[in-house]
Amino acid sequence: MPHINVDENLPGIRSLMAFSPETATPMGKLANLMLRTNEGLSMAEREMIATYVSNLNDCFYCAQSHGAIATCYLNDNNELIEQVKKDYEQAEISDKMKSLLSIAGSVQKGGKHVTQQQVDDAKNAGATDRDIHDTVLIAALFCMFNRYVDGLAANTPTDLSTYPLRAKQIAEHGYGNYIFSIPQPV
Amino acid sequence: MPHINVDENLPGIRSLMAFSPETATPMGKLANLMLRTNEGLSMAEREMIATYVSNLNDCFYCAQSHGAIATCYLNDNNELIEQVKKDYEQAEISDKMKSLLSIAGSVQKGGKHVTQQQVDDAKNAGATDRDIHDTVLIAALFCMFNRYVDGLAANTPTDLSTYPLRAKQIAEHGYGNYIFSIPQPV
Repeated sequence: MPHINVDENLPGIRSLMAFSPETATPMGKLANLMLRTNEGLSMAEREMIATYVSNLNDCFYCAQSHGAIATCYLNDNNELIEQVKKDYEQAEISDKMKSLLSIAGSVQKGGKHVTQQQVDDAKNAGATDRDIHDTVLIAALFCMFNRYVDGLAANTPTDLSTYPLRAKQIAEHGYGNYIFSIPQPV
Repeated sequence: MPHINVDENLPGIRSLMAFSPETATPMGKLANLMLRTNEGLSMAEREMIATYVSNLNDCFYCAQSHGAIATCYLNDNNELIEQVKKDYEQAEISDKMKSLLSIAGSVQKGGKHVTQQQVDDAKNAGATDRDIHDTVLIAALFCMFNRYVDGLAANTPTDLSTYPLRAKQIAEHGYGNYIFSIPQPV
């Protein structure tokens, strides 16, 4: 049960965004800016970082939601995302993505865990300053979103079939003010 | 040295906000919404939560910056903030604030660390749903800001005398787009 009185028909962060619509707007904007662009990192790669960090933070709702969105962009059967969550070193992704996931994993522990060696490795694998910035910021953002959702014990749908439906909507329409403007099957 | 090529004359998060002005705007908006209101929790109490969490995250820049802003609002000599960082149970703050700092400390570890007992204690001490929401969101926000700053190794002024000057500006003008619009002594 959520720790505060929110609309229990809305899942996860959406119930909190309805409780606090003023903060929902800049949060949606940050999600859009960091996840809905193919500049440098692709949208699939950005969602992969979000999913990886959410899984490390043990946030079931965010890991499922963003894993489903990544899968939507990748147009596969969820296998790659499951492999990234399990052990990204063995996943079929670029060396650049592996080095960036390594940085994201350190950010999840705490900013100071990122080492110069990790940054050098990422740059040697082709990562730009923008890629490194975006990786750190996406990881940091999800350290916020994950804590917001679980710190208030927002409801989490356990029916896994609901996530791909919602993911498709976000893949098509993005995040901006999405909780209010789009019909909500999830 | 910062991990990416940012303006080294700007300290902490401000160098990152100049690198990425698009994301700086919603971040400044979130800071303003959560820290620049006396609705429920006072601005001093909100900055106290931000400082407490930043200190737990070992983010020197954010802990110093927001400690200085809290001290500005409290109009004291920094003793209360130092006591909150050291051991808030012994600080001269309300039982409600102690219960909320306890929740903030759990959010810093991870959202699922917040217990029903902590929430009940806070409500029994007079905390509203809004107070609990704001505490969790401020704590979560600083888990992002702290990681953004230290994950990219942004420059941190070690001269402690610079922080109160900057704090006074923020206490007077707030956070919105502040890195661009206000003269910057710090």
